[in-house]
This record gives sequence, structure tokens and C-alpha cells, in this order.
Amino acid sequence: MTHTSRKTLLLTPGPLTVSDRVRGAMMRDWGARDPAFVALTRRVIDGLLRISGADARHAAIPLQGSGTFAVEAMLRACGAGPGKTLILVNGAYGRRMADICRTAGLAHDVHEMPEDQPVDPAALRALLGARSDLSRVAVVHCETTSGLLNPIEQIAGTCHAAGRALLIDAMSSFGALPVDINALNATAIAASSNKCLQGVPGIGFVLCRRDALVGGGPVVLDLAAQLRGFDTDGQWRFTPPTHVVAALAEALDELADEGGSAARLARYRRNVAVLSQGMRALGFVTLLPDAVQAPIIVSFREPEEAWFDFQRFYDGLDQRGFMIYAGKMRALRSFRVGAIGQVFPEDMERFLEAVKAVIAELRATG
Amino acid sequence: MTHTSRKTLLLTPGPLTVSDRVRGAMMRDWGARDPAFVALTRRVIDGLLRISGADARHAAIPLQGSGTFAVEAMLRACGAGPGKTLILVNGAYGRRMADICRTAGLAHDVHEMPEDQPVDPAALRALLGARSDLSRVAVVHCETTSGLLNPIEQIAGTCHAAGRALLIDAMSSFGALPVDINALNATAIAASSNKCLQGVPGIGFVLCRRDALVGGGPVVLDLAAQLRGFDTDGQWRFTPPTHVVAALAEALDELADEGGSAARLARYRRNVAVLSQGMRALGFVTLLPDAVQAPIIVSFREPEEAWFDFQRFYDGLDQRGFMIYAGKMRALRSFRVGAIGQVFPEDMERFLEAVKAVIAELRATG
Repeated sequence: MTHTSRKTLLLTPGPLTVSDRVRGAMMRDWGARDPAFVALTRRVIDGLLRISGADARHAAIPLQGSGTFAVEAMLRACGAGPGKTLILVNGAYGRRMADICRTAGLAHDVHEMPEDQPVDPAALRALLGARSDLSRVAVVHCETTSGLLNPIEQIAGTCHAAGRALLIDAMSSFGALPVDINALNATAIAASSNKCLQGVPGIGFVLCRRDALVGGGPVVLDLAAQLRGFDTDGQWRFTPPTHVVAALAEALDELADEGGSAARLARYRRNVAVLSQGMRALGFVTLLPDAVQAPIIVSFREPEEAWFDFQRFYDGLDQRGFMIYAGKMRALRSFRVGAIGQVFPEDMERFLEAVKAVIAELRATG
Repeated sequence: MTHTSRKTLLLTPGPLTVSDRVRGAMMRDWGARDPAFVALTRRVIDGLLRISGADARHAAIPLQGSGTFAVEAMLRACGAGPGKTLILVNGAYGRRMADICRTAGLAHDVHEMPEDQPVDPAALRALLGARSDLSRVAVVHCETTSGLLNPIEQIAGTCHAAGRALLIDAMSSFGALPVDINALNATAIAASSNKCLQGVPGIGFVLCRRDALVGGGPVVLDLAAQLRGFDTDGQWRFTPPTHVVAALAEALDELADEGGSAARLARYRRNVAVLSQGMRALGFVTLLPDAVQAPIIVSFREPEEAWFDFQRFYDGLDQRGFMIYAGKMRALRSFRVGAIGQVFPEDMERFLEAVKAVIAELRATG
């Protein structure tokens, strides 16, 4: 049971395999300024607010583009106040936040850690205690560079205790892992339509405190102006990707039907358990210990044996209907297998069979 | 014959009604970094280059977001050199370019005209002759604010003769009206997936001279960096809206099958002729003389009789399967009816029947 009519299953960090139901929601053309589309947008905004535990102090602001567009908009809008933003970096997405701040001329400092080590809350506490110029902390919840899970509750508690604002890139966690803006006392959270929400790519969004939108910025990335549009007449300032919005509205309903984020997280955990155990049984080594592995995407070391060739491995799996992902870590040759999207433990079992077959083929012909 | 399975036909400036064929291309999930998607992206880029008459000096750079994202990226990348950009304004989209330049701190001047009058090339020539600080000219080809067609060939000729660069917002013309980057000696052209190309919304693009990308800017809007990504490995820097890209690839094939831009333009012209003549026969007055009317969208004065109420008119047409568009001109109460998308003269005839029925209803119950 794969719940998809397409033969290739995307085991990637997104864009990922979505359901026929979500894809089917794109079969209608919408007038971007028509009341029916305004209502559809409202459904999406309300759904995002609900999932994040937001209240009247908060806004959910969808933005055209990709997740990174939302991250840049968040940093420009919420990272522009007095003092610096401390960016916690243990992967490519943390580095990207630093790039954005540097390019935007936003005051920031970078605290870099190895890519296989989560943020240490005690070290963060010490750093914030010693540095009163650090007004805000920005962190990636789940670094898909490696698959690392940063301890967001402890990071949030540390920031709150130290009186610092917290900006979260929750791209690969929102919709499955709990990211409650109130429980975390977060100032802003950025994520996108095409990760754990299981929509299609084309919009990101920022959940934030309404009073935190202090920065200006490029016209198209201006979150305060975007919010004024939604608040005023419910419309997007600029043409929205209507089909993508319709798919996200359907995906939010589908998430509720699955039993909400908790049920989805439980499924992803089962996917990762089947995947990790099965791959280990086949001789593969996971890059991260299970304790810091997010239930989103798993990195495996490339085998050092002569038979292994990533391209042939990728192609062999692709021919069998599975798309994996290249590695992105700096220090190690690795590849990644995603566990999110409309993917089920049975799919992971089928994937393991395919891996076995490809290994046999590579060993025989390598 | 409407060529669509949906009952509501969008007679708007876009997002518009697309074909079942284009919508159907969204029924597959793509891996954003997979070779098959790289090839799909290449098809789109090559198609855009072909339509615009580009050569090896030019690049086509797709960008996530809406058309305005592409316009802002174009102005930041190509409007940052020495001297000022003269922005020719005769509608909301010209004003938006001025907003973008002001927010970005790009040196510019605004030359504003009435919203129902096209750019006068003689006046432009005089202005450029008197002002050596104006290095570049930016203009909207078709102002959908009113439906006005600016004389792009004459504007381009004037700029070229005066040795000034030309940046064109060809949002609502590209794909139907000729916008040849070489013939116009244009520096850059911005447009989007969901207008005359008849794709779905979600990406814009900039066609430009490779040597014109002098400005930096926000990370996500940085066209030079975006182009480096495509040039290097054919991939998008950040997650692309894969389904939207697939729809655009299909839409480009569909455009070729229709006979190219010339055939599409001929169909749009027929749509506008049927629409304008039919509406005039029903007593409506077009806002623009035919000589300056673009074959894209037509503005009509709101009747001053007591029976007319825009909301009831809109709703009555919506109930009959046609979505029209509110007016956007500053000085006049008007509404707009689009002629682009998967819309045919027969659809316009049906629309006129619907208008007739709604008028009768409003007159009877007003």
C-alpha cells in the first residue's frame, strides 16, 4: 500500500511523495482575488495557527517561494531589532541563515558545532550569560544536512530563562514534531508546504508574534506588508501559487484525518525504525546515534568496499522505484534516505528489498 | 468547446484557466535534484530562451515566487549600475517598480502619465536627451491596470538610439505579443509562468544579458547566484515548485503545438474583438480606444444606471460560470474582463450571453 499512483517513491527531505488526494486538489483553477480563494487561504492560515498552538498574539504568514524564502523573510523581519542574532550552526541550513544575515547586513554572530552534534543547552546558557549583546537566537530544529535533531525544548527554555528571543527554522519538523510557539516561547518559526505537512512545494510560511515584525526589507519578502494584506481583505499582495495553496489546504485536512501531528510523527518514527534497523542488518552504518536522530531523514556512511558506487546505487534504486538523496555533510561521504511524505513502513520494507537487490547487483558486476 | 473540465472560466489577468493537459502535468511528484527534473528545468529554460529570441549572450533565469518576485530580482540585479533608472509609469505595475526601487535604495526617477495614455516615444526621447543621469529605462509592456499596450518597439528604439539600457516588465505579454530581447536590444525582461504562457502560478523568470547582472541583493532574489546554480549543475539553489515547473514545461509544448506565440496572439485578438464588440452592443463602454488596447484584458466603465451593482454583476456571472475582475484604475469606476488563458472566441460568445442574462436580472430586481 503506497497510497500513490506514481511508481517512484521519493525518499528525500522534500519535495516528497504526496498523496493522490493532495495532488488531486490541484485540478482546479482558482481566481486569486475571488472570495472562494480568500476562504481557502483563510483555511490554510487557520490550520497553521492551530498546529503551532498560536493565540491572538500570533500571525501565520504564507509567502510565495520556497522554505528559504520564508527563512530570509523571518530573519529580515524579526532579526532586525537591537543587539545581535546568535546563529547556532551544525549544518548547511544553519550556515544558510548566517549567509542571509550577512547579505542583509543584520547584526549576528555564529556559534558553530560539528555537523553530527546537537546544540548543547549548557554551552548555550553559558554563552548567553556571557554576552549581553546577543538579543536573539536562531536555530534549525532538524538539520537535514545530517538528519540531526536539535533539542528545541531545552534550547527554548534556555533562551526564555535568559530573556532572549528565539527564531526557529522548523522546515523539516513542522507538522510532525511538536513545534508549539507558545510552549517554546518562540518569537518566530519558519517552515514550508512540502515537508511534514505533505503538501507540494511553492510556499513557505512564518508563524510569529505580531509585535515581532520590526524589520523592513525587499518588497516581495516584507512580512509586515504581507500580513497587512491578509488582515485587510484576506488576499495575497502578489499572485499566489493558487494550485499549491489548494494542495496545502487539502494536506492540512489530510493531516487532521491521519490523527494530527502526533499520529504522523508516530508513522515517521516507524518508518525510521524499519529503515535504520533494516539498513544496519544489510551492513550499513548510520552516521548519527539514534539518540540524536530526527525521525525525518537518515544519513548512512557510504560503504568503503570497492563495489560501492553512489551513482550506480542511486540508479539501481531509481530503476526499482525509489529515489534516495545524496549526502550533504562536509566531513563524510554519505547518502541520505528520507522517511517523510506519503510513505509507510511497508514502503520501507520494499525499499530494503530493493537495496538488497542493488547491492547484489553491484557486488556481482562491480 | 472550452478545453477545460472546470465549470468556472477565469476571465482575469491571471492566474487564469489553463488546459487539462497543463494541469494534468502536475500529477507526478519530482525529486528536485534528480536528473529527470534537471532535464525538465532545462526544457523550460531553453523554451523561454527560444520564445524571446535570445542568443548565447543571454540567460533565462526562473525564480520561485510570483511575477513580482522576478521584477524585484530584475531591478535589483540589473538596475544597480551607475546612473538612475527612469521608470515609466501609467498604471499600478509601473508604480510597483518605483516602490521596489525606493525600498531597495536603487537610484531612480519616475515619469508618470495618465493611466489611459501609452508612453509617448517623442516625450521619452526628449527626456533622455535632456538627462544624461538616466542610464536605464524601465517600462511595463502591457499595463493590466487598464489593459493599455505600451509601444514597446518604439520605446526600445528610442532607448537604443539614446544608448540607454531597457528593462521590461512583460508579465502580461510574454508568450503572446512579440518580446524579442535581441530585436528590442533589451537588457532584461521579467515575466511569469501563469499569463500568456498558460502555465500555473508559482514561478517568475528573468531573461537578460548575462553581463547585466551587476547588483547583489537578498539571498533568495539573487539572480546571479540563481544563474550560477543552473549553469553549474542545472539545479535550482532552493527547492523549486516542482509541480509548477512541470506544468510550465507542458505549457511551453502546448504553446508550440498551438502554432507558437503568433497563433496564440491571433486567438487572443479574436477573443478581444468578440468581447469588445459584444459588450458595446450591450451598451458597455470600453475605457481605452482600440488603438491602445492590448489583446490581454479589457476595462469597461461601470454603467452609471441605478440597476448596476458590481458585486451582484460579479456574482451573477460567477453563478453562470464566468469570473471577471474588479477594476484597478485610480480615476474611474471600472471592471475588467480578461481574454487570455485557455479561452476561445466561443467562450466569449457564451460570456456575452451570460452578461445579457445578468443585466436582465439586475434590471428586473435592482
